[in-house]
Amino acid sequence: MPVPSPDTVAAVLRHVDASLDQSRERLFELLRIPSISAQPAHRKDCLRAAEWVRDHFAELGFHAEVRPTEGHPLVLAHHAGPADYKGPHVLFYGHYDVQPVDPLELWSSPPFEPQLVDGPHGKRFVARGAVDDKGQTMMFIEAMRAWKEAAGVIPARITALIEGEEEVGSTSLEPFLKANKDALAADLALISDTGMWDIDTPAISVRLRGMTYAQVTLKAANRDLHSGLYGGSALNPINALTRILGDLQDANGRIQLPGFYDKVKPVSNAQRAQWDALGFDEGAFLGKIGLTVPAGERGYSALERLWARPTADINGIWGGYTGAGSKTMIASEASAKVSFRLVPNQDPDEVMEQFKRFVAERLPPGATVEYEGHTRSPGIEVNVESPWVRAAQAALADEYGKPAVLMGCGGSIPVVTSLRAVLGLDSLLMGFGLDDDQIHSPNEKFEQRCFHHGIRSHARLLAKFAGG
Amino acid sequence: MPVPSPDTVAAVLRHVDASLDQSRERLFELLRIPSISAQPAHRKDCLRAAEWVRDHFAELGFHAEVRPTEGHPLVLAHHAGPADYKGPHVLFYGHYDVQPVDPLELWSSPPFEPQLVDGPHGKRFVARGAVDDKGQTMMFIEAMRAWKEAAGVIPARITALIEGEEEVGSTSLEPFLKANKDALAADLALISDTGMWDIDTPAISVRLRGMTYAQVTLKAANRDLHSGLYGGSALNPINALTRILGDLQDANGRIQLPGFYDKVKPVSNAQRAQWDALGFDEGAFLGKIGLTVPAGERGYSALERLWARPTADINGIWGGYTGAGSKTMIASEASAKVSFRLVPNQDPDEVMEQFKRFVAERLPPGATVEYEGHTRSPGIEVNVESPWVRAAQAALADEYGKPAVLMGCGGSIPVVTSLRAVLGLDSLLMGFGLDDDQIHSPNEKFEQRCFHHGIRSHARLLAKFAGG
Repeated sequence: MPVPSPDTVAAVLRHVDASLDQSRERLFELLRIPSISAQPAHRKDCLRAAEWVRDHFAELGFHAEVRPTEGHPLVLAHHAGPADYKGPHVLFYGHYDVQPVDPLELWSSPPFEPQLVDGPHGKRFVARGAVDDKGQTMMFIEAMRAWKEAAGVIPARITALIEGEEEVGSTSLEPFLKANKDALAADLALISDTGMWDIDTPAISVRLRGMTYAQVTLKAANRDLHSGLYGGSALNPINALTRILGDLQDANGRIQLPGFYDKVKPVSNAQRAQWDALGFDEGAFLGKIGLTVPAGERGYSALERLWARPTADINGIWGGYTGAGSKTMIASEASAKVSFRLVPNQDPDEVMEQFKRFVAERLPPGATVEYEGHTRSPGIEVNVESPWVRAAQAALADEYGKPAVLMGCGGSIPVVTSLRAVLGLDSLLMGFGLDDDQIHSPNEKFEQRCFHHGIRSHARLLAKFAGG
Repeated sequence: MPVPSPDTVAAVLRHVDASLDQSRERLFELLRIPSISAQPAHRKDCLRAAEWVRDHFAELGFHAEVRPTEGHPLVLAHHAGPADYKGPHVLFYGHYDVQPVDPLELWSSPPFEPQLVDGPHGKRFVARGAVDDKGQTMMFIEAMRAWKEAAGVIPARITALIEGEEEVGSTSLEPFLKANKDALAADLALISDTGMWDIDTPAISVRLRGMTYAQVTLKAANRDLHSGLYGGSALNPINALTRILGDLQDANGRIQLPGFYDKVKPVSNAQRAQWDALGFDEGAFLGKIGLTVPAGERGYSALERLWARPTADINGIWGGYTGAGSKTMIASEASAKVSFRLVPNQDPDEVMEQFKRFVAERLPPGATVEYEGHTRSPGIEVNVESPWVRAAQAALADEYGKPAVLMGCGGSIPVVTSLRAVLGLDSLLMGFGLDDDQIHSPNEKFEQRCFHHGIRSHARLLAKFAGG
């Protein structure tokens, strides 16, 4: 196959436009399968969704199979692409499982009976999984279908991996990656599970924060004590824990672990300029959750704080008497769950050691400290100079008539970490969700306009991969 | 009746010695009634215990009755004493209810089958309530019985108030005091529910710490947030709460509320000298609870810290995710229960206001704070120059051959506060428990030696009241 011509691409895009209703109907079919991975009662539905996805890949000429795991099965599908293909071998990742639907009474329609309803941006789809991630996965499949139907060929070499446990921690994913390295060999991963900047502005997520998380427990006396009999002599581990953790940040929100910022690489001026130009309204962002004043590190813009600065958050704390009324006890121990969001180049193990040293230096005599459940995931920065990011930028610019925002993402996406760790792959995160899509909540929705432009963008990207 | 002669007192004491076995048997009878006030299943047992106590007062010639309350009944008994009695009208307070017994499997004998067993100090009684407070209450009753049997008369004017809700917060006590002020008119309250310094050294408790206690809740966002999406912008109320409460004390254990120490009266040099002379072994005290290093305010002796210095303890704290594993949330609120033990002359309301100001000054912008359940009880200092303290000192010195320690008590005793607040009465706290009596725990015990000397001490005190 020659490099796709502009005419071919135009024909494919026209086909996308013409078959949008059918594309939506196919998505709705998938949305009707209640593949809730967290609920054992839906185990068969998960298998059914996997088989449905497998069949749709097979229809496109993929060698496709449902592969069992300890949990829900994965769909693995492969398409060699044109014989003379010179572009990258793309590993497309998506997931067919969805979040539970409760509280059911807050849904305006049954979550697995997808509705086409009117909204401020035109039609939208309302259903569990509409965007996360059935809608986003189907955009890629529909883009390939348009190529096949309009141009007679899918122009790239593609392996697809569609898992069924993303909403429950992707337990089986890493073992599967490790056991199937050869079958998963590729040049890059393409993931459509993230968002746009806004409905008119496409985005590629190029930074993800990492995290290190641990539970810390301070122990003092060997039993709970009466605060009247012992207060003034016996160490109170809750007082001690608040004293230590209260020092995590200074008055400017600067994290106080010695060495914590040593490896933090400042964002480039170009990146900062792009973010500043977005005019992010932090007041509106906070207003939606009932807050008015930004917290966090002084001296950085909101987007930099959210995407490119590390944090220290106490995610939970407990100790002593927490029931109704008053009980005058001095507890024997107090615990907290503490996490640090990390930026690329910070080492999660090193930060955890810094935290432990910080605690040890402040530990009052007579107290002991224990840690549990240290998790570690490094921050990730995609090389924005890579040919694949450039290809996606070009595809999105062609589609939307404006450059894609190179966004950060404040949270981590575990599959990105796993793909890099196990397969050595960089991920290209091109997604079409919006902030108000209500993922994981009642009335999850996906804008038809996003779905439509998303299919077209994927179709364009396939052409770019093929050199078009 | 004339002032009791030394011979009369000696005869009464000989009678105490001779009838010790019967005294113990009567106590054992009361101990066999499982009057657990906290457990509705034992409601009838509580009534039975009240009736038993009433009958024993009646046997001694008291006008005695069981008085119903909203909860468990009280026993009210009155004895006018000799017609020519010139001494104080004594209001004796005790309680017939006991703590629950679980964990039952840790008892070496059934808790309501009192045992006479050998211990390092001779015989001891093992049963729930052995010392707290059936044993201590019975010492007073047995002292009166000895007077009646040996001298034919109870030499003082006595009102007895034996309640059945001490172990569940004395809910009905204050209403009863308020409704029966006339029937309870007296010159002092005598309470036998405290401890000795050690088995050879009697004690009078002359200082009780007070307390002010509140629950504080910091609120931030109107819902729990994902720490990846919001970390670095949204206020974390747990971080904020630890930051505020972590400042309650400085590195020397000094409480940081402005004005907190203004009204704290230093203990007298004489009092300090007596306490210092006791050679209190704080290492051993802490060793029993698995601690090695004293906490609390630097620059004060252990007994002064425990009895005469105020404290700030966080009795409970909670917020965010406290289950297994890790959840990356920023909670919408965080709470703590905070109490201040107060010394005489500190005003609980004033301290609570100081605390609220302290929090308000540190409250990060955008957070709100709420308080709940403010309790207030002032510290109490008994006038050690009062004739009644002197009478008790004399009685105890006669009995033990050494002066009674004028102890402090780190906790508050609510009835003491109520008796002062409602009836205007000072309490004389003369008790015979030991630190290792295991009150509220399995295998509660009372040393027979303490019981015996306790009856004798009460018998001597009755003589002192009568001018003997």
